[in-house]
Amino acid sequence: MKNLQFDLKKAFFNKRLGIAEHRQFLILEMALELIQKKGFEQLQFGELAKKCKISRSLVHHYFKDKLELANSLLDLSTLHLQNYVQTSLAKEKDSRLHFQIYCKATLDWAAEHPIEATGLLLFIYLSSHNLEMRRRNDQLSALGRQKIKLLLTQAGFTARIDSNAHIIQTVLTGCYLILLSENHSIKESLQLRSDCLKTCLAVAVSK
Amino acid sequence: MKNLQFDLKKAFFNKRLGIAEHRQFLILEMALELIQKKGFEQLQFGELAKKCKISRSLVHHYFKDKLELANSLLDLSTLHLQNYVQTSLAKEKDSRLHFQIYCKATLDWAAEHPIEATGLLLFIYLSSHNLEMRRRNDQLSALGRQKIKLLLTQAGFTARIDSNAHIIQTVLTGCYLILLSENHSIKESLQLRSDCLKTCLAVAVSK
Repeated sequence: MKNLQFDLKKAFFNKRLGIAEHRQFLILEMALELIQKKGFEQLQFGELAKKCKISRSLVHHYFKDKLELANSLLDLSTLHLQNYVQTSLAKEKDSRLHFQIYCKATLDWAAEHPIEATGLLLFIYLSSHNLEMRRRNDQLSALGRQKIKLLLTQAGFTARIDSNAHIIQTVLTGCYLILLSENHSIKESLQLRSDCLKTCLAVAVSK
Repeated sequence: MKNLQFDLKKAFFNKRLGIAEHRQFLILEMALELIQKKGFEQLQFGELAKKCKISRSLVHHYFKDKLELANSLLDLSTLHLQNYVQTSLAKEKDSRLHFQIYCKATLDWAAEHPIEATGLLLFIYLSSHNLEMRRRNDQLSALGRQKIKLLLTQAGFTARIDSNAHIIQTVLTGCYLILLSENHSIKESLQLRSDCLKTCLAVAVSK
């Protein structure tokens, strides 16, 4: 876990890590924890500063307002997910199996990392009314479909590839949302993920 | 449209409509409009009162705080969706076709009534961190699955009915979310809905 955190920090800032970077990362992690407990609506820079044991003005120094913070939270959550998926893919050399692994890892991530996943849920919600977020959502969503299309091609599925990639993304999004917004036992969560994975595979082969 | 509004109001309050009920309904409609434009986070009772041309204290008289308002918005959105779906189902006498109509109507509702649908999206988001909302979400979600199971049975699909109902609900939720949080042309929206509907039908027959 420590290593993943360190790699994430490096990838997030894309430069040598100084005290400023460690602090910003701490603020983002604490913000995600607060949001998962109370929601973005209730998040206040004062409480966030207290949780980080730094001054409120220092939080404001790094993040002008809540929307800027939300944008960085999205970066962190996206990077966390990508890191998780890439780690899963790296273990399998046969690229024909990468589509399946990608789908499974995406769903497992939401179940195993609810705090980081809450950043993506916040983003989807904000995209419903904030135009800047919506633009980013459109871009990220298009990138996601590109990735799914590539993996489908590698797996040998080429029929109806645009439509199928879009449906697969829809199934993953729906499952992800349900995992984060409803109570499930571990058994129910595993069952739902397994069923959704099977559905993605069935969609992949449909013509 | 006027009739639907009137029926909704009657169903919402479940009693004779006086000035108080008309006012509360107006407040909820205006709140949904504001939320769709700026988000729940930015919604303020002062602005809402101004939009309704009533006093701020009157808004507070009907809705103690934003969470109480959110609960009523959920009631209104749910009722609006149910009304839309029931109207579609009532046009078809053959109950074997009701499953398909239900899925189509649910997706069309999200595309055609984004303002009312935003109430459900807010609810899903709030359910990720608010325990009271999450309990309501669990209940509503279970009711939704019951309904899907009933429609599947009427359509003659009985294999793997619990799992399949859950997957179908997941596909509908995912499509709904994507329709509300991304920009689509009308053509793209129709294509996605049609593809998701086909996927629901494919899941229904899967064993």
